Amino acid sequence: MVAGLEQIKILATAKQVPERVVSNDELSGLMETSDEWIYPRTGIHNRHVVTDENTSDLATGVAKKLLDEAGWSADELDFIIVSTMSPDGLSPHTAAIVQGNIHAANAFAFDLNAACSGFVYGLSAASAFLASGRYKKGMFIGAEVLSKLVDWKDRTVSVLFGDGAGGVLLEKTDEPVGLIAEELQSYGEMGDAILTGRFANKNAFAGEISPLDPYFHQDGRAVYGFATREVPKVMNKALEKAGLTADDVDFYIAHQANHRIIESMAKNFGQSMDKFPTNMEEYGNTSAASPAILLDEMVKAGQIKPGMKVAFVGFGGGLAIGVQIWQL
Amino acid sequence: MVAGLEQIKILATAKQVPERVVSNDELSGLMETSDEWIYPRTGIHNRHVVTDENTSDLATGVAKKLLDEAGWSADELDFIIVSTMSPDGLSPHTAAIVQGNIHAANAFAFDLNAACSGFVYGLSAASAFLASGRYKKGMFIGAEVLSKLVDWKDRTVSVLFGDGAGGVLLEKTDEPVGLIAEELQSYGEMGDAILTGRFANKNAFAGEISPLDPYFHQDGRAVYGFATREVPKVMNKALEKAGLTADDVDFYIAHQANHRIIESMAKNFGQSMDKFPTNMEEYGNTSAASPAILLDEMVKAGQIKPGMKVAFVGFGGGLAIGVQIWQL
Ligand SMILES: CC(C)(COP(=O)(O)OP(=O)(O)OC[C@H]1O[C@@H](n2cnc3c(N)ncnc32)[C@H](O)[C@@H]1OP(=O)(O)O)[C@@H](O)C(=O)NCCC(=O)NCCS
Ligand SMILES: CC(C)(COP(=O)(O)OP(=O)(O)OC[C@H]1O[C@@H](n2cnc3c(N)ncnc32)[C@H](O)[C@@H]1OP(=O)(O)O)[C@@H](O)C(=O)NCCC(=O)NCCS
Repeated sequence: MVAGLEQIKILATAKQVPERVVSNDELSGLMETSDEWIYPRTGIHNRHVVTDENTSDLATGVAKKLLDEAGWSADELDFIIVSTMSPDGLSPHTAAIVQGNIHAANAFAFDLNAACSGFVYGLSAASAFLASGRYKKGMFIGAEVLSKLVDWKDRTVSVLFGDGAGGVLLEKTDEPVGLIAEELQSYGEMGDAILTGRFANKNAFAGEISPLDPYFHQDGRAVYGFATREVPKVMNKALEKAGLTADDVDFYIAHQANHRIIESMAKNFGQSMDKFPTNMEEYGNTSAASPAILLDEMVKAGQIKPGMKVAFVGFGGGLAIGVQIWQL
Repeated sequence: MVAGLEQIKILATAKQVPERVVSNDELSGLMETSDEWIYPRTGIHNRHVVTDENTSDLATGVAKKLLDEAGWSADELDFIIVSTMSPDGLSPHTAAIVQGNIHAANAFAFDLNAACSGFVYGLSAASAFLASGRYKKGMFIGAEVLSKLVDWKDRTVSVLFGDGAGGVLLEKTDEPVGLIAEELQSYGEMGDAILTGRFANKNAFAGEISPLDPYFHQDGRAVYGFATREVPKVMNKALEKAGLTADDVDFYIAHQANHRIIESMAKNFGQSMDKFPTNMEEYGNTSAASPAILLDEMVKAGQIKPGMKVAFVGFGGGLAIGVQIWQL
C-alpha cells in the first residue's frame, strides 16, 4: 500500500448536462465569431446551455444518479459539498438546496468556491472530512451554470464556457485505495486576470455606489501563460509528495479549459495525449464541473478502472491551482 | 484527555469591524422604524457598516492581526479558508484575495458558504484539514459585508444586519486541546425562509429571463421558530457525542442573530445568560463573522481562557445548524 494513503473509495460517478447544445456555428449567428476562430484556439466545438434549469437542478440530477448507482439511500449521507462559482444564489447555498431536494435527512451541506479549481479543492475538503475520522459517507458535486454569468454579447468570453455538473460518492474504506497526495496553491496577486460576479458596495452609507457587474471578464493571454507555466510546477510537487513519476499516473483528468493548455502539459511531462483525455470539444469550460464530467465519461466508457492511478488537475480563477493523485 | 479529541490549537483570534456605526435612531430617519421596535425584538442597538471597504478588506485586516498576534509570517500558512455569504465576487474568491494581500506564498485558499452557520462549518472544514494530517497551520476567517445585500428601504431586514469579520489561527498540536465533537445538520427543505443574492438564469438561450434579485428576504417568524426549536436538538447531539452535559461547557459562543433566540437557548439548557455572551447590541447580525467577533472580544477581555470548554453555535440560511465543542 502506498505510504500515507488516505483510505477513501470513490464509489460512484455521475454527470448531468443540459440538453440544449449550442455550436460554434450557432454562436456565429449571434456575434462576430466563427468555428474557424474558436476551435483551433480552444478545442471547443459545442457547449451545453441551460434553458430553465439552475445550478441546483443540475447538481440534484447528479446527486440522484450517484445514489442510484451506489444503491445508497439519501439518509446514509453524512455530508454534501457542492463546488460552484455560479450558485443559485448566496442563500440558500446550492448544496443545501440539493440536500433538501434529495431528503438527505442526516447530512450537512455547504458550498465551496475555488473557481475552476473547484473540483480539486472540493474533493480535497470532502476527503479531509473522511480522513479526519468524523464521517464515513460523503457526496461531492461540482456544478456550474456559467451561462448566467456570461455576457452573450462579449465574444472574448462567451464562446469559452458551458453549463454542467458532475460528482462522486466517497466512502471511508479499509481497502488500499484513496488519496495518495495533493498539492494546492493559490496566487491571489493575479486574481484580476479572471473576474466574475462582483458585488458592488451597495448601501445607503457608502461614499460611492459602484454598479454591480455580474459578468465574466478575462485576460485570456495572462491566464494561458499562467496555466502553462505554473501547473507543471504544482504537478511536480504533487508527484514528489506521492513518490511517483509522471509515467506512473494512468490518466490525468485536467480541467477542460482549453485544448492547447492540456497539450502543453502533456508535452511538458513527456506524456502522450492519450493520458490527457479531453471533452471540452462538447462541453466547453464548465469550471468546477469539468473534471467530474470527464471522470464520469471515462469510467462509463470503461477506460478508467479500479487499480489505476489518476491525477486530477484544476486551475483558473483565484488564481488557483490544485492537483490530487488518487489510487482508484 | 477527552476521548476522540482532535488535537488542534486555536493560537490567536482577531476581529475587524468598519468604523462607521449606524444606530437604530439613525435608521429611523431613513425608514419607518424605531429603537423601540428594533431593540426589544432583536437586542440590536447599533450595527457597523462599511463605507468604501469590501469583504476582502475586512478579512485582510483580520488576517494581518492574526499573523501579528501569533508572530507567524504569512508564508508559514498552509491554507486560508474564508466563510462568507457576501464575497467580493464569484471570482476571484475572497480567500484568494486575502492570500494575495498578505503574500501567503505557500497557502491554498477557498471560500465556503453556509450562510450564518459559516463560522462553525468553516471551522469544521479547517480543523478537518489539520486532523487529516495533511497540513499543520491554517487560517480561518468569517467575513461579511451584508450591507451590500440589504435593501435599505426594506425595514423588515435592513435593521437586522451589519458588516464585520473575525478569525482564528489554527495549529496541529500535541497538547490536550482541540475539537471534542461536532454536530452539523442542514435543512434544505426550509431554504426559502432566507433568500439572498439570487442569480437569475440569464443567458441568450433561456426561455424566460428572470430579473436578478440581489437582496435579502426573510420569513422572520419561520426562522425564529426554526432556531428556537431545532438548535437545542443539534446541541444535545453534540453534547452527547462529546460525553458532556450543558453544565460542562464554560461558554456558548452563539451566532448573534437575535437576543431572544439566545435567551431561549439558555433557558432551554438551564444555563444562565452569563454563559451565553452577546454583542449583537453593537454589531447586529454579521452572519459567518458573528461568533468570531464575539470570541475575539471574550478572549481579549480575559473571559475566555485556555483550559475552558467552549461551544460554537451557528444557525441560519440554508437552512443550516452547526455546533462544535472545543477544549481550549
Ligand atoms: C481566450 C483565448 C482563446 C484567446 O486567444 P488569443 O490568441 O489570446 O486571442 P486574443 O484575446 O489576443 O484576441 C485576438 C483577436 O481575436 C479577437 N477575438 C476574441 N475573441 C474572439 C472570438 N470569439 N471570435 C473571433 N475573434 C475573437 C480579439 O478581439 C482579437 O482581435 P484584434 O486582434 O482585432 O484585437 C486564449 O487567450 C486562451 O485560451 N486563454 C486561456 C483562457 C482560459 O482557458 N481561461 C479559463 C481558465 S479556467
Ligand atoms: C425579524 C423579527 C425581529 C420580526 O419580529 P416579528 O415579531 O416576527 O415581526 P413581524 O415580521 O411579524 O412584523 C410585525 C409588524 O412589525 C412591522 N415591522 C417589521 N419590521 C419593522 C421595523 N424594522 N420597524 C418597525 N416595524 C417593523 C411589520 O411590518 C409588521 O407590521 P404589521 O403588523 O402592521 O404588518 C423576528 O421575526 C425575528 O427575530 N426573527 C428571526 C430572524 C433572524 O434572527 N434571522 C437570522 C437568522 S441567521
